[in-house]
Amino acid sequence: MKRERGILIVLSGPSGAGKSTVISALLKCRDDIRFSVSATTRQPRPGEVDGKDYFFRSRDEFMRMIGQGAFLEHAEYVGNHYGTPAAPVEEDLNAGFNVLLDIEVQGAAQVMKKRPDAVSVFLCPPSLTELERRLRGRGTDPEEKIKCRLETAREEYKMAGNYTYIVVNDDAQTAAAELDAIITAGLCRSELRLGTILEGVKPL
Amino acid sequence: MKRERGILIVLSGPSGAGKSTVISALLKCRDDIRFSVSATTRQPRPGEVDGKDYFFRSRDEFMRMIGQGAFLEHAEYVGNHYGTPAAPVEEDLNAGFNVLLDIEVQGAAQVMKKRPDAVSVFLCPPSLTELERRLRGRGTDPEEKIKCRLETAREEYKMAGNYTYIVVNDDAQTAAAELDAIITAGLCRSELRLGTILEGVKPL
Repeated sequence: MKRERGILIVLSGPSGAGKSTVISALLKCRDDIRFSVSATTRQPRPGEVDGKDYFFRSRDEFMRMIGQGAFLEHAEYVGNHYGTPAAPVEEDLNAGFNVLLDIEVQGAAQVMKKRPDAVSVFLCPPSLTELERRLRGRGTDPEEKIKCRLETAREEYKMAGNYTYIVVNDDAQTAAAELDAIITAGLCRSELRLGTILEGVKPL
Repeated sequence: MKRERGILIVLSGPSGAGKSTVISALLKCRDDIRFSVSATTRQPRPGEVDGKDYFFRSRDEFMRMIGQGAFLEHAEYVGNHYGTPAAPVEEDLNAGFNVLLDIEVQGAAQVMKKRPDAVSVFLCPPSLTELERRLRGRGTDPEEKIKCRLETAREEYKMAGNYTYIVVNDDAQTAAAELDAIITAGLCRSELRLGTILEGVKPL
């Protein structure tokens, strides 16, 4: 059975939930995924590559793109702007790929509203205590930034009920397997397959 | 993360869709499933065991159970009665098992209405032509029964849009893998997990 068009997956959750690790594990077991690259005004972290990890853009460039309506969603988070350019997402969906949007909670809410067909997943650590441990363990952020992130995370947890699914990232492999299953299930939704099976009903 | 209570899965579709084969394959890869045993007034087929394949009951006994409100759903199909005893389903769900109901389309509609939390799957052959081939290949049914089943199947296909998911049984292993993914995804639904993750939000 040929899949005509891919599905859109919104993956969001508190910073430090381990989204990148889970996505890497997922991409190893599926070849039908395109990982949407976001644009951001934040500075690259060591090792991050422009056009691969993010499109790193100046504030001016980012504002120009907003003006052009170039984003599927955009948001400000801890002083930086993040956005998902719409055009590459549509291209990948039309080419039959499932597109994974790794975005923060404000942006996710925009996409879920604009695109009710999207499969949405809230990825989070088992607890806020564990999140705090992970953020400190990373060793890259100053104390005040960690406190700000934890406060934000607390608010974000309260939005979890707006997502279709919640994946608890206790173990990255298990979380990736659940995400894999969620995508497979998403492709089985009756509204996507109804056309194909009903074609066979007429000629009886 | 402990799962408190299992989920209810409604699996339905035209007779001859290969439900039994798909369920067997599924039970090999999951140990958290209980396969609900239906009661029926139809005659056992060769090899079928009472209490395992079905609870084979007389028409009188079946009517008495209806009167007692003992069924989660019940329906008449090709002259026979089928029903799902409610008590064992609830016991298994409470014990943390996911309960699979293998029921025909009329009964499935009753359960979906009564239990909107149930995950519903329409399992069907790739086409009605293929279904006809399978029914004749079975070699157990007289011609008029096959014609009746095909006409019923045609009506059943039209109900496919009422299910959450459609699984096309072209290959039983693939169909079982999709069903497996659908169940895993069902367990990740945010309404089931919200309580667990929000417990961690208060003590910050």
